[in-house]
Amino acid sequence: MYISNGDKLKSWNDGPVKQSIIDFLNSSVEEGPNYIEPGDRIATFDNDGTLWAEKPTPVQLHFLFIAFARTARNDPSLADKQPYKAIIERDETFFQRVIEQRPEAVMALEDALARQWAGKTPDEFDMEVKEFFKTVKPEKFASKFTDLVYKPMLELFDLLKDYKYRVFVCSGGGRDFMRVISEETWGIFKENVIGSASEYEYNNGTLIRLYNVLGGIALGPGKVEHIFARTGRIPVFAGGNSDVDIEMLESARFKLFINHDDNEREFAYKNGAEKLFNIAKENGYTIVSMKTDWKKIFRS
Amino acid sequence: MYISNGDKLKSWNDGPVKQSIIDFLNSSVEEGPNYIEPGDRIATFDNDGTLWAEKPTPVQLHFLFIAFARTARNDPSLADKQPYKAIIERDETFFQRVIEQRPEAVMALEDALARQWAGKTPDEFDMEVKEFFKTVKPEKFASKFTDLVYKPMLELFDLLKDYKYRVFVCSGGGRDFMRVISEETWGIFKENVIGSASEYEYNNGTLIRLYNVLGGIALGPGKVEHIFARTGRIPVFAGGNSDVDIEMLESARFKLFINHDDNEREFAYKNGAEKLFNIAKENGYTIVSMKTDWKKIFRS
Repeated sequence: MYISNGDKLKSWNDGPVKQSIIDFLNSSVEEGPNYIEPGDRIATFDNDGTLWAEKPTPVQLHFLFIAFARTARNDPSLADKQPYKAIIERDETFFQRVIEQRPEAVMALEDALARQWAGKTPDEFDMEVKEFFKTVKPEKFASKFTDLVYKPMLELFDLLKDYKYRVFVCSGGGRDFMRVISEETWGIFKENVIGSASEYEYNNGTLIRLYNVLGGIALGPGKVEHIFARTGRIPVFAGGNSDVDIEMLESARFKLFINHDDNEREFAYKNGAEKLFNIAKENGYTIVSMKTDWKKIFRS
Repeated sequence: MYISNGDKLKSWNDGPVKQSIIDFLNSSVEEGPNYIEPGDRIATFDNDGTLWAEKPTPVQLHFLFIAFARTARNDPSLADKQPYKAIIERDETFFQRVIEQRPEAVMALEDALARQWAGKTPDEFDMEVKEFFKTVKPEKFASKFTDLVYKPMLELFDLLKDYKYRVFVCSGGGRDFMRVISEETWGIFKENVIGSASEYEYNNGTLIRLYNVLGGIALGPGKVEHIFARTGRIPVFAGGNSDVDIEMLESARFKLFINHDDNEREFAYKNGAEKLFNIAKENGYTIVSMKTDWKKIFRS
């Protein structure tokens, strides 16, 4: 049994939020009503806005925009279709509708995702992601996207591992995109990264991506579905920051909501998180004020 | 770095097979041409016939037969359809065709699998599996199916973990069936169990199984596909015993083939493994003779 005084949470200010995390973890490994069996110690976290900055544009959308724009240039017949049309016209409302999980928007995005890398090998896809990280840079705060990862969250991962929690990342974004950076950036093996993904076909020693998105995009209830498929469990500890994380937090025992309220050191915004914000307040979730609870924001 | 003299492989006789496992693992953690990065240390194993006895009937098929027979009794219109017809008529050739991965047989099985537990919650399914293990007993050798797990393979899991390999089980059988016993029986967390599975839908706090088999049955090339989806990698170390494991072994660096040649202590048979047996011999796979290489077969 490991009982912590929170030493590992160096970038967290002392206060009720930090304390509630430590108290929960301690009580989860002590005999008593809050004890959690070792097998059940699953912690899951959203990525964009929970583990790194998602403004002005989520990194993964940035990556998709570049790829989709290239595809639309090569096949002008797509220019009138979503999401290509929205990208060409710089129409943000389409992606807002995706966040709101409107079926027609999600399906259009899903189809474009499926089309984009069909026929590619994992290596070809990985090279494209690496090229993106090498050539495209954030607009603010850091010179690399991976430096926009939140230091306090990495410390929380470390603390969870001390208590023998297995830490997973579950994003609506592409599983295979995140896997390129997960080990170096988060210290999380690829197999603990859950997200939207295509099926692959193995033939003559080679894996080739098919034209589909297997099991749908991991948004809203889809997060719980993907987590259960991957782990055989629902999470005990979950962290998220937007309305697409509502079901994942609801399913967990300890619910950590990251509130973006620091306009000086990051971005202050509520859009896309209005519903979750209300649920979190009404139900006593642990609400992280980035402004008040975090000494340091980025790992860089 | 951990260098072993094979102490953990207590149920393995000394000889070239045991030595080749130890040599491979040692060289994989030493600087040099055979070094394997920690992230890449993925080991995958088939289940039926690799981790436990699969004769006279694979345990999972036994479980399916009972369930499918019940369904056919409740819906006589299914009695003329496969696989129900084969079960009613005790026709083994249908399941032989599944092993041979004949499309029409695999698709019929897939549809029946999808139908069988559609609408059920994970708890309802788990209870059915537990009831099966409580009430149905093996015909030979042990009083419980889980006592028919091979002790030498459990020792190998332990050894692999010492070298910081992450051990996964990948079976054509049902993922959720194996997850019921994986932690207690193999010491492997549910999330490291890969297999054929349905999608789930999360609604109002409840997961419900849908009428499908997501990503197909994990047989042959499907094993590599499922392993890549789950782990983001192909395995470094793989163990299997039948023709549905050919691609998984082919994809791995260290290929362990379990040869059932001990009719006294288990079952001696080649059927369903003829192709793999020839590939293994021609290509110098590490061939385990259960008769010669294993001191003890079962964990019980």
